[in-house]
Amino acid sequence: MNWYTEQWSNDCKFSIKYNKVLHSEKSAYQQIDFYQGDEFGTFFTLDGLMMVNEKDEFIYHDMIVHPAFATNPSIKKVLIIGGGDGGTAREVLRYKTVEEVVMVEIDERVFRLCQKYLPITAKGVEEDSRMQLRFEDGLAYVKNAPDESFDLIIVDSTDPISVGEGLFTTAFYQECYRVLNKDGILINQHESPYFAEDASHMRRAHKKIKSIFPIAKVYQYHMPTYPSGHWLFGFASKTYDPIKDIQAEEWEKFGLKTKYYNTDLHVGSFCLPTYVKEELERDE
Amino acid sequence: MNWYTEQWSNDCKFSIKYNKVLHSEKSAYQQIDFYQGDEFGTFFTLDGLMMVNEKDEFIYHDMIVHPAFATNPSIKKVLIIGGGDGGTAREVLRYKTVEEVVMVEIDERVFRLCQKYLPITAKGVEEDSRMQLRFEDGLAYVKNAPDESFDLIIVDSTDPISVGEGLFTTAFYQECYRVLNKDGILINQHESPYFAEDASHMRRAHKKIKSIFPIAKVYQYHMPTYPSGHWLFGFASKTYDPIKDIQAEEWEKFGLKTKYYNTDLHVGSFCLPTYVKEELERDE
Repeated sequence: MNWYTEQWSNDCKFSIKYNKVLHSEKSAYQQIDFYQGDEFGTFFTLDGLMMVNEKDEFIYHDMIVHPAFATNPSIKKVLIIGGGDGGTAREVLRYKTVEEVVMVEIDERVFRLCQKYLPITAKGVEEDSRMQLRFEDGLAYVKNAPDESFDLIIVDSTDPISVGEGLFTTAFYQECYRVLNKDGILINQHESPYFAEDASHMRRAHKKIKSIFPIAKVYQYHMPTYPSGHWLFGFASKTYDPIKDIQAEEWEKFGLKTKYYNTDLHVGSFCLPTYVKEELERDE
Repeated sequence: MNWYTEQWSNDCKFSIKYNKVLHSEKSAYQQIDFYQGDEFGTFFTLDGLMMVNEKDEFIYHDMIVHPAFATNPSIKKVLIIGGGDGGTAREVLRYKTVEEVVMVEIDERVFRLCQKYLPITAKGVEEDSRMQLRFEDGLAYVKNAPDESFDLIIVDSTDPISVGEGLFTTAFYQECYRVLNKDGILINQHESPYFAEDASHMRRAHKKIKSIFPIAKVYQYHMPTYPSGHWLFGFASKTYDPIKDIQAEEWEKFGLKTKYYNTDLHVGSFCLPTYVKEELERDE
């Protein structure tokens, strides 16, 4: 019997049974491994950390995309940084009103392998005429992008170690601010409050974003295959408040069926436990 | 290196490191094991399943107690079924307005061992003059209790297998209804939506409770050491709606410091993911 095991913290680990390893390689950026199992279907890891599996990817991709569109249903130009599995692009492309999606993934191998092994997230993304796929450094891309050129930036990154590190810096968030139009929204992978190291990443990212964007909030969701199952996204914006300005009725008109997201949950997801709020507001 | 491992589903397991086993015994009802570790402190299992640990017991105990009191701050008489670790009683007893707490735990050994090894939950409970501790079958106790004798019943049970099974039956919920006064609230341990077996327990419990109580809702929280980390309580009542009737300002007057619960989170916790709502409403 084969088990993929991830160390969630010093004293805690999580294991998933698999039938076989579909593919393993070391790309220019990271170790990439694809597994095939029963309950979780196909899943892949980067540098040994769970990224996407067929059982619960819908949770992550619903929550990284739909709250922004329910807050501003007029979003037309979207920049995705990272997101190599394609799931974030897949959800964005469901909005027929979106005109242009630029996805900047540093590691082309992740996307190509997901096209082959994980069509649930990657299928159809490259074929959509509104997509512009770029395999390059997201930080450099944003530095060179014109002012106010996107309505929404989604940072679908790994943890702020190794490849993803630059996407958790003040310099990067400042460039995002500049590149967003006056109603712009920034969504970012915001780590987790439960284990100490993740909580430290969470607090530092929030502090940086809050220093740049007038509106900076954090929302939570249940992601069982990520450490502790308690995971967060950041919602930062120049104008819109994700709770006060939610346009639930407008969003319903898109007619999108979602398995995790709904507009009640949207509002509820910004109601954080007291210890999380305190940790976010704590000075270092 | 020693690891306590729990099988969360067919293809998924969760492990916590411990330094030593503090105590193991087979009581008249179940296998009881206490462990001591670093990150999770002292923890104990019943029949090999995680019950309580020092790192995240505050989440479970905040969420099983405070939503009921914020909905009806006038609660005076409380019945706890199960809850042998003492944590639920501890939180209830923080309300000075509570006059009487009956705790009916079938297995006295659980409570005695928690007094010894887990004072974080059990300390002071027996000494409080408002407490009546009874070590007997909860189902039988409720059958024999007078009509309308409690404001709140909290079912702090194990899973609906072995010892806890009777606490997930229609007959039991009917007795709870009878024993609750006209404003009465029933809170119950409601399993989890993510893994198929837990979701089946969740759906069946909800169906039964909904057939008896005019108000029957489910709320969620992040409990990292329970399977999937996505865990639920049921809120059933004769009169009060936990969202519309929340008395946030009244609850604030109690002046209780809570690490997980707050009245915003209270409302947010009833906003469930779409797949959970569908599963709860689905006919078998």
